[in-house]
Amino acid sequence: MSSTRDIDALIDLMARLPGLGPRSARRAVLHLIRKRGLLLAPLARQMQLVADTARECLNCGNVGTADICDICSSEKRATGELCVVEDVADLWAMERSGVFRGRYHVLGGTLSALDAVGPEELRIPKLLDRVHAEGITEVILALNATVDGQTTTHYIADQLEGRVRITSLAQGVPIGGELDYLDDGTISAALRARKEL
Amino acid sequence: MSSTRDIDALIDLMARLPGLGPRSARRAVLHLIRKRGLLLAPLARQMQLVADTARECLNCGNVGTADICDICSSEKRATGELCVVEDVADLWAMERSGVFRGRYHVLGGTLSALDAVGPEELRIPKLLDRVHAEGITEVILALNATVDGQTTTHYIADQLEGRVRITSLAQGVPIGGELDYLDDGTISAALRARKEL
Repeated sequence: MSSTRDIDALIDLMARLPGLGPRSARRAVLHLIRKRGLLLAPLARQMQLVADTARECLNCGNVGTADICDICSSEKRATGELCVVEDVADLWAMERSGVFRGRYHVLGGTLSALDAVGPEELRIPKLLDRVHAEGITEVILALNATVDGQTTTHYIADQLEGRVRITSLAQGVPIGGELDYLDDGTISAALRARKEL
Repeated sequence: MSSTRDIDALIDLMARLPGLGPRSARRAVLHLIRKRGLLLAPLARQMQLVADTARECLNCGNVGTADICDICSSEKRATGELCVVEDVADLWAMERSGVFRGRYHVLGGTLSALDAVGPEELRIPKLLDRVHAEGITEVILALNATVDGQTTTHYIADQLEGRVRITSLAQGVPIGGELDYLDDGTISAALRARKEL
């Protein structure tokens, strides 16, 4: 491909990132080489730093640079509300919205009979422990609105029934959404959950 | 966004790569953190290596890890043919085809009155030197088929006229191309350059 082995090796590694193929990896590497002082060297250093320090929070499963993540260790977030999400990307999405002030619990996936994922493969036992240990008053199940996500929601709700308030995210028309572009399932969910004005 | 500054800093740097935005950068960084042993650490090392060693070939402008690139220093490529391309990505594309056995000259762009790019901003003086110094017998102008690319082709052809054989890539229907999907310009170029079977 290019004229040197080291650059080819970098292209091969970059092509393993999600969303990049061989062609876009080549383009990215050429861009990095052109900006090797301003971008490539800082990126290499930052990657090494994160590779050395990143770990999963022992409590909630979020990624961070300490054994207990910033959210779990912040006293301000001990509101008694616990938001359960499938993975860290979902946690980050919730944090970007800036609305939730409690703590999180990252399951690391969903129950799936097909892929032989049971409660022990996820962080469900740890979730049940936390509800007791942290004095949780409300568990917000914010799993994806997929079949596996909803199965997992129901399983967890069963496990926690009677011990704590259990809620899930509202379903309906997204803000800015146009009816014409929404699927039938969303429209019927929004209609069933209609509200008085 | 995420819970730690170091990870956010990595996301910001990744988002500056071509083809990645904030969302895909977050996805890539999460993937890297999950595979920090297998992918993130090797990628960081390889980037540092390339940042430390990558440079432009003093002769042709290709990127490599030596002052003179592998192609320029290979005696096997001293065929007397010199292929002129706009940038390194084009050189790499030519090399992938595996057909050209001569050497390259990377201009680093095209002439552009609008952007005030004249011959001195490109590697055109160096090209004229090389034609003399390296005993070049044929200059293949493989610039992109854009207006600026064709302007540059004509400028270089004028400069070299009478000193060396000057050719350019054939224009026509791409292999596997369907007429229905081709633009008018390509179809008329292909028709004008039609060949006896």
